[in-house]
Amino acid sequence: MASTRERMVASTALLIREKGARATSIDDVLAHSGAPRGSVYHHFPGGREQLLEEATDFAGGYIAARISRGDGPLELLDSLIEEYREELVRTGYRAGCPIVAVAVEAGEPGSRLHEHAAAAFAEWRALLTERLVAEGVAAGRADELAVMVIAAVEGALVMARAARDAAPLETVHNQLRELVREELGEGRPA
Amino acid sequence: MASTRERMVASTALLIREKGARATSIDDVLAHSGAPRGSVYHHFPGGREQLLEEATDFAGGYIAARISRGDGPLELLDSLIEEYREELVRTGYRAGCPIVAVAVEAGEPGSRLHEHAAAAFAEWRALLTERLVAEGVAAGRADELAVMVIAAVEGALVMARAARDAAPLETVHNQLRELVREELGEGRPA
Repeated sequence: MASTRERMVASTALLIREKGARATSIDDVLAHSGAPRGSVYHHFPGGREQLLEEATDFAGGYIAARISRGDGPLELLDSLIEEYREELVRTGYRAGCPIVAVAVEAGEPGSRLHEHAAAAFAEWRALLTERLVAEGVAAGRADELAVMVIAAVEGALVMARAARDAAPLETVHNQLRELVREELGEGRPA
Repeated sequence: MASTRERMVASTALLIREKGARATSIDDVLAHSGAPRGSVYHHFPGGREQLLEEATDFAGGYIAARISRGDGPLELLDSLIEEYREELVRTGYRAGCPIVAVAVEAGEPGSRLHEHAAAAFAEWRALLTERLVAEGVAAGRADELAVMVIAAVEGALVMARAARDAAPLETVHNQLRELVREELGEGRPA
């Protein structure tokens, strides 16, 4: 059973991925999590900004844990994209990636939220690179490919949300699969 | 000299790419464009929603016109990415793509704005496919590659904004260049 604090962070992440950080209010988080109003400053003395930062870290950490789970690169790509696809369909294409939602609001003055989005991308990139290197891909190429995978999946999610159709995600999935497969083939000892 | 109406639409597109559609108010648009308050309902009887829709169409049309300009696919990729990179650096990494900003807010109830974002992506995709086919790439492959180019560039822009560093865009640029170059090589008569 999640604590009130954990429920508030998870609710904030779910709200951000649908509405963006800027549009997510304390009231929205209380309504979504069922937490009492007093819990905000009790658990988050930094208020809304702290809650948004922790939600961004939580969302980044969720995907990082998935990448670290030990699947091979192709199985990881398949299962992650399938999970995103299911969430898109289940929510009527409203639920994208909270990290992207935070990053595109990077212009908000005074907020350091974009640094938390950048940290999430950097962690995914390092973990993906590690997984590719573990399968024999050269480090430099693994890093490039990790950037490409993250960029293309995130971009395809945005296109799928706009069109309310998962097809762009499937098209990008097939092409990334091919790119990764080629590297694994070349990286394996003959 | 742009008309008041044109200035208002262009201002709205510039504001959307930094702040998102949801956070862009009529007051912001008036301040940015210098238009008098009475001009809103005179030029846009549908109010803020009409202004946001027209700004989305304007931003989509700007890139569509760039794609149609007649450059070869590689030159087009180079010049478009360079333009995005310059805008990122010039604005302190605040200016991303307005179409993405609109698409990630696709959850707003009652708004049809996401349909305008989807129309922009669809137009870019069709025009990019056309340019690739004109260079000898098979239609099905050209369409897949067009989706990949749009997704990866948009995702890389988001990563670059978060990190306040254009490196992800450059990494993706090199890899997309390689993918396109391979297809052009194969598509050309020997």
